[in-house]
Amino acid sequence: MSNKLWGGRFHGQAADWVDDFGASIHLDYQLAAEDIEGSIAHATMLAKQGILTEEELEQIIAGLNEIREEILAQTFEVSVKNEDIHLNIEAKLTELIGPVAGKLHTARSRNDQVATDFHLWLKHRLPAVKEKIQGLQEALVNLAEDNVETLMPGYTHLQHAQPISYGHYLLAYFDMLERDYERFTFNEKHTDLMPLGAAALAGTTFPIDRSFVADELGFGQLYHNSLDAVSDRDFALEFLANAAILMAHLSRMAEEMILWTSFEFNYLELSDSFSTGSSIMPQKKNADFAELSRGKTGGVYGHLMGLLTVMKGLPLAYNKDMQEDKAGVFDSFETIMNVLQVFTGMIATMTVKKGNMRAALKGDYSNATELADYLVKKGMPFRQAHAVVGSLVYQGIEAGLPLEDMPLEELQKASELIDEEVYQVLKPETAVNARTSFGGTAMKNVEKELQRAQAILQAKA
Amino acid sequence: MSNKLWGGRFHGQAADWVDDFGASIHLDYQLAAEDIEGSIAHATMLAKQGILTEEELEQIIAGLNEIREEILAQTFEVSVKNEDIHLNIEAKLTELIGPVAGKLHTARSRNDQVATDFHLWLKHRLPAVKEKIQGLQEALVNLAEDNVETLMPGYTHLQHAQPISYGHYLLAYFDMLERDYERFTFNEKHTDLMPLGAAALAGTTFPIDRSFVADELGFGQLYHNSLDAVSDRDFALEFLANAAILMAHLSRMAEEMILWTSFEFNYLELSDSFSTGSSIMPQKKNADFAELSRGKTGGVYGHLMGLLTVMKGLPLAYNKDMQEDKAGVFDSFETIMNVLQVFTGMIATMTVKKGNMRAALKGDYSNATELADYLVKKGMPFRQAHAVVGSLVYQGIEAGLPLEDMPLEELQKASELIDEEVYQVLKPETAVNARTSFGGTAMKNVEKELQRAQAILQAKA
Amino acid sequence: MSNKLWGGRFHGQAADWVDDFGASIHLDYQLAAEDIEGSIAHATMLAKQGILTEEELEQIIAGLNEIREEILAQTFEVSVKNEDIHLNIEAKLTELIGPVAGKLHTARSRNDQVATDFHLWLKHRLPAVKEKIQGLQEALVNLAEDNVETLMPGYTHLQHAQPISYGHYLLAYFDMLERDYERFTFNEKHTDLMPLGAAALAGTTFPIDRSFVADELGFGQLYHNSLDAVSDRDFALEFLANAAILMAHLSRMAEEMILWTSFEFNYLELSDSFSTGSSIMPQKKNADFAELSRGKTGGVYGHLMGLLTVMKGLPLAYNKDMQEDKAGVFDSFETIMNVLQVFTGMIATMTVKKGNMRAALKGDYSNATELADYLVKKGMPFRQAHAVVGSLVYQGIEAGLPLEDMPLEELQKASELIDEEVYQVLKPETAVNARTSFGGTAMKNVEKELQRAQAILQAKA
Amino acid sequence: MSNKLWGGRFHGQAADWVDDFGASIHLDYQLAAEDIEGSIAHATMLAKQGILTEEELEQIIAGLNEIREEILAQTFEVSVKNEDIHLNIEAKLTELIGPVAGKLHTARSRNDQVATDFHLWLKHRLPAVKEKIQGLQEALVNLAEDNVETLMPGYTHLQHAQPISYGHYLLAYFDMLERDYERFTFNEKHTDLMPLGAAALAGTTFPIDRSFVADELGFGQLYHNSLDAVSDRDFALEFLANAAILMAHLSRMAEEMILWTSFEFNYLELSDSFSTGSSIMPQKKNADFAELSRGKTGGVYGHLMGLLTVMKGLPLAYNKDMQEDKAGVFDSFETIMNVLQVFTGMIATMTVKKGNMRAALKGDYSNATELADYLVKKGMPFRQAHAVVGSLVYQGIEAGLPLEDMPLEELQKASELIDEEVYQVLKPETAVNARTSFGGTAMKNVEKELQRAQAILQAKA
Repeated sequence: MSNKLWGGRFHGQAADWVDDFGASIHLDYQLAAEDIEGSIAHATMLAKQGILTEEELEQIIAGLNEIREEILAQTFEVSVKNEDIHLNIEAKLTELIGPVAGKLHTARSRNDQVATDFHLWLKHRLPAVKEKIQGLQEALVNLAEDNVETLMPGYTHLQHAQPISYGHYLLAYFDMLERDYERFTFNEKHTDLMPLGAAALAGTTFPIDRSFVADELGFGQLYHNSLDAVSDRDFALEFLANAAILMAHLSRMAEEMILWTSFEFNYLELSDSFSTGSSIMPQKKNADFAELSRGKTGGVYGHLMGLLTVMKGLPLAYNKDMQEDKAGVFDSFETIMNVLQVFTGMIATMTVKKGNMRAALKGDYSNATELADYLVKKGMPFRQAHAVVGSLVYQGIEAGLPLEDMPLEELQKASELIDEEVYQVLKPETAVNARTSFGGTAMKNVEKELQRAQAILQAKA
Repeated sequence: MSNKLWGGRFHGQAADWVDDFGASIHLDYQLAAEDIEGSIAHATMLAKQGILTEEELEQIIAGLNEIREEILAQTFEVSVKNEDIHLNIEAKLTELIGPVAGKLHTARSRNDQVATDFHLWLKHRLPAVKEKIQGLQEALVNLAEDNVETLMPGYTHLQHAQPISYGHYLLAYFDMLERDYERFTFNEKHTDLMPLGAAALAGTTFPIDRSFVADELGFGQLYHNSLDAVSDRDFALEFLANAAILMAHLSRMAEEMILWTSFEFNYLELSDSFSTGSSIMPQKKNADFAELSRGKTGGVYGHLMGLLTVMKGLPLAYNKDMQEDKAGVFDSFETIMNVLQVFTGMIATMTVKKGNMRAALKGDYSNATELADYLVKKGMPFRQAHAVVGSLVYQGIEAGLPLEDMPLEELQKASELIDEEVYQVLKPETAVNARTSFGGTAMKNVEKELQRAQAILQAKA
Repeated sequence: MSNKLWGGRFHGQAADWVDDFGASIHLDYQLAAEDIEGSIAHATMLAKQGILTEEELEQIIAGLNEIREEILAQTFEVSVKNEDIHLNIEAKLTELIGPVAGKLHTARSRNDQVATDFHLWLKHRLPAVKEKIQGLQEALVNLAEDNVETLMPGYTHLQHAQPISYGHYLLAYFDMLERDYERFTFNEKHTDLMPLGAAALAGTTFPIDRSFVADELGFGQLYHNSLDAVSDRDFALEFLANAAILMAHLSRMAEEMILWTSFEFNYLELSDSFSTGSSIMPQKKNADFAELSRGKTGGVYGHLMGLLTVMKGLPLAYNKDMQEDKAGVFDSFETIMNVLQVFTGMIATMTVKKGNMRAALKGDYSNATELADYLVKKGMPFRQAHAVVGSLVYQGIEAGLPLEDMPLEELQKASELIDEEVYQVLKPETAVNARTSFGGTAMKNVEKELQRAQAILQAKA
Repeated sequence: MSNKLWGGRFHGQAADWVDDFGASIHLDYQLAAEDIEGSIAHATMLAKQGILTEEELEQIIAGLNEIREEILAQTFEVSVKNEDIHLNIEAKLTELIGPVAGKLHTARSRNDQVATDFHLWLKHRLPAVKEKIQGLQEALVNLAEDNVETLMPGYTHLQHAQPISYGHYLLAYFDMLERDYERFTFNEKHTDLMPLGAAALAGTTFPIDRSFVADELGFGQLYHNSLDAVSDRDFALEFLANAAILMAHLSRMAEEMILWTSFEFNYLELSDSFSTGSSIMPQKKNADFAELSRGKTGGVYGHLMGLLTVMKGLPLAYNKDMQEDKAGVFDSFETIMNVLQVFTGMIATMTVKKGNMRAALKGDYSNATELADYLVKKGMPFRQAHAVVGSLVYQGIEAGLPLEDMPLEELQKASELIDEEVYQVLKPETAVNARTSFGGTAMKNVEKELQRAQAILQAKA
């Protein structure tokens, strides 16, 4: 007869490599703390309901606490023969306290147990993700405070478009991250659902008290349907989707950091602590961490696709396919935590080359819109103004002459509406400060949004 | 000089096929209604602010209304030379009302215009998605009402696990869909953000009133940062992620419908209206629509992956890559609307073969857990009970003898704790009704959850 | 009774919208030419085998030719009631030639028919893809010919690393595309397999001659297993994987074009025919087509993921899910054909700003490796040389003094091994031409590889 | 000054967690054997070219061999401070043999070194993948030999379609796997390209001999372009695409195993060694390994999507993003090796319930096509025959009467063309053996294809 816990019906033995393939212990070892926490709550409820005696409960809790100590001390030994963390802990518990350990499994199945552990694991970690997002938001706000008046080219299509405040740029990421924060907050809703008590799939005949267990574990809600409880991985899919969108945002910031630390842009210099050199080229200073973060976007996208694929077409209730639900979530969690921290560090320690940013606005024709708007305000239809300025830009490029350096008579040849004031209009400072529409880049707007950002952060503190 | 609207700087001409490649009009034609709606609101605001005269406003609105009529009458002709829906409408407006049309473009760019159209498009459609989800939930509830007492095997690993109420099964999908509903509701938050007024990327120098426009269009919030306003596609990513998770759910239901209408399971018969035959095999009755729905999961997953890929590593603000944001969203919207309706129709019209479901519980050993629990309640440790029952199952399979048909003496050989009452315990009805734990399959639980489901639906009505 | 061709068993009617959902005619209309070609070959074989009379054959061929004419003239009307292109053509054929049309379906099912059409469709198009790849390779070679001696910074981590020949850079893409070419060539192997004659799934009882049909259609191989023939979509998955890798390559080139046409890099200027302006900013000249191509990478990646998802877990043989196999392939084909052509056009017409490329090597420390190697050749261990040069670079950056402009005594302070010859070593031309290792950037190497590239192209011509 | 190997230019220190984030040693430790192999070949060449002395070579080889011993003995200690496997080995080598270790890095960069290691790693493993595929093919052939005459329902849309030979079904997978084999063989072409000697990106000034190194390492080809050599990951993308398609195939087989071991189908029984039970339900015997394999499809799909995302839009040459190229390949390799072995084991040890397969053909109307074809051969047009049989099936289902059990007069009411011979026609054996078209399921065909399969396997042996 098989030595497996489910061996009664079985008379053959699996080869070691088969056990190895089927086992998840290498991975779900990370659930150990949650597994013990869940077991203690479950046992406490069983005793409260008279299913366990107080003495049995004490033995079980003592045993579980001992195992927890071993885990913390990293002396807990696991075996693939015991498949997963749940059975490894149960086997150890049996070793420690004898057959009473078996009673812990009353009114519980691995199906609802692993789902509970996984919910709990994520429930414990979502606040940490949100905190790291806030940390990066704070770094952005701190830097923005210093850079309300730092002007730089705003880009579309990676071409200089119009001058903007660098502080304004930084606050765009603040708002993007705020949406990430809100998504992870929403994610808490469907994570905060307790499956325990669904048993294998249909509920249990034992007089359990799921609400009590939920209270012990800090869950706000119970699954209302036992089949759903063991089949659902929405909370994990939401987490991966949120992580993917977050990584999309951070990959954009990474791209800009890589560009802006290049020889050509030269807007930023990363601190030595957040850059690396080359083993062959002594002059190199690479934005390696930004690149690595951008690269890690692939892994997170892949994990999302992976779990969506796993769940596709699975009949209810639990299927073994779902064992593949955790690797991607664990790895994505680690990735986003690290990447958020790396960005926070990079931003907090980098040097902003304000002079270079400002200098990039010289002769880049990013004031062309200003000239067009100036003509419109003097009465020229927009499309005509656009064409007039387009021609001037073309001339300027041919002649190597920025708009702001063209003599007035030259400008007036293009349109008689132009007068001396135009040179004021063509200054980046004017352009930026004229964009006072709500959400625009005018410095006073940026100041106001900065206050709003600070208020948002304080409200969470 | 180029005939393009941005031609001032340009002196070469693009070949037709290049224009064709760059154009998005074939696709974003679907934004026409929203584009006109947005333009009318923008023009109204420009007039209110004194940027347009009342007369200009009237001309513009009249022209836009005429174009809207043409679009409704499907007589509006578009040209790839005009790239996209925005420029096609503007070109037509110029044709209709002359150069004053150009003034509509004051204080606006295609960057904020297309973002606004896209937000508005999705904002208009999210309620329809939610309604379709509700429609399917209603169909499930209606069917569940008839099937609280219909017993069937509950499955794990596609093996008979324990008997359940079919009504309980149906309500699992109700809860899954309720989470979908909540996700699309959350999706409204970041869709309900108006970009208009961000202009190209930095805001505008014109004294616009974005709040007024938002009110006109029914937007609840404004983007606070102009760069973010034109760069953000979170609302589309959220939609695609939600659609992907919804399709994962529906692919699971599809899989079960395909299984359950098979010759082997034979639990359901789809109505003729929702099945198809074979052009070569006259006996075939295929669950084609369930299969097609399951297949369409691929497309939606792919669209999510597609847009995530598009957004990866894009520097702020607008880049042309983002033109690729709409095809997947449009197609996914159409897919989920259709698939939800198809499932609603299939469920409302299919025949439940209650007798076959019940018959499948005969001799399937799905009452083995009952026997184990019975022994536990008589004092045997769970793991021992499990082993005893496992051996009985093994014997039974060898002998072709279900547990419920084994003579008492045979059962007592396995354990003396067993007595005559065991036969009551082994009945599926007993098993189901004994699972009274919260969320369990006991019929009285299912009744209660049914009421909850109805209350949820009514609260939305 | 249903009016469907498979209606014998059916007594209910599907609603129009259900028919619409199930129909694929909107999409598989693109298979019309292949469908008729396949039918003519099939009918010809049936006549050869005595299953059709010669007269019946003539009628059928005449009818099919008439339909082909209608399709070419775009007067062929299709109906969703007839689901797909196959049944639409069959319905029309019946209308034209009466019940004999039904005989065309002898020994054939839609399962093998659609698979054959799809194979044939791709078989006809793979050579076109390969030709377009070659077209781009030619453009690269042509440009490389002019730029063997054009020096520019080679980048790693987007930092100047070492000077390279721009011709060398262009040939890197030649080699990447050559691998793409090889992948699409390999793709032909599994596309060149004829399913026809597999019938629904098991073969047919009619005495057909599949080899004859294959010869008529130009197929080199037959599927050896009827179940495989109707279930297999490997050829489509291979195509999508190849298209995805191709797009990865082209997205890299796109990224560089976008960077290199920026104000900051300014290495390239796209022709007016392959760039666009801004509707609001008159100075803009955007690499829109490169951006759009980069964006379209998302769609192709998504289509690959989509079909992989469709195929996951599908039991043999045909399932309706597989109707979702074509949309992504059709769209990906169109995308890669267009994108390849756009890149060919961009490269053939853009202006290379050789002076700017060369100027970027001034003071960028990309000659640091040269100095280190120089020291190594004089006997210093590499790691020490690396450190010495690293310090000089640091000093140089602090003092704003490029290595090539440092006085000899300064250099000698760092190492006495340095003498006057060092200034020759520090020139980019020296650096490039010293990299004579096989595959290195020395101009004479580039010349040799250029000849190899030309030989490869000629061998295919 | 930093203690990093590239520290000359650097004056700040990275925090430990930053080093940790940037390090890849945990992962690329798996490249250790290939790294040492590559270094020995490189050093040998350097000596042959006179760049190292024979004595230096001996010291380096001795040192590397010692490190190899430590790695084999699992006593080699690595540090994240040394980032990756290459620098860890170099640091250890320096510890062992002193500064001469630094000379090993002559004419080499980590960029070409890691690319070489990765190529070599995959080059060593592709034959193992192919062998495992062959192992599964052999298991299929062995089982098919026993099951040429085993009849079962062939399915389309998971409905009984027509009877087939189970041997025929098994050989469908043989052919699918043969295409997988061919794809991995093609994969070898682009894996068998040696990057070493490309140095950082541009080649080297040292007089190296790349062909010699390639010969030492068993590489058949050299990269012709140094930029391509360090930037290319096509071989890895091809591997992941091939692995994904393989997993798609195996997920289909898995799905069928799960279905066919279900209570409802009951065609197969897995051996105890390849199934698992339930910790709560004693009767369960789950096809866990098939489910887990199906689930692992998600991970492999995700890894493909992940690396495609990483490579999207990366400028040449090396970028740190590419450090994310290995995790997915390593994991996918392990997955497919395990899954192939599991399937081989499951198939070799499972019990085919031939009687149940045959019994499923009773009364399932899968002989309906036969009746239609019979009528066609008697002169009835196919579409009419289809309708006649469709009606008979409908009657039969209503009356619970299979076609083969209908009295002759009943059948003749449907068509007078029917005579006594029809009962022979309606037998599954007749149906199967009549499908003699090439690739059809007739037993003599299956025999022939079995011989072909055996010949294919022998040719590879």
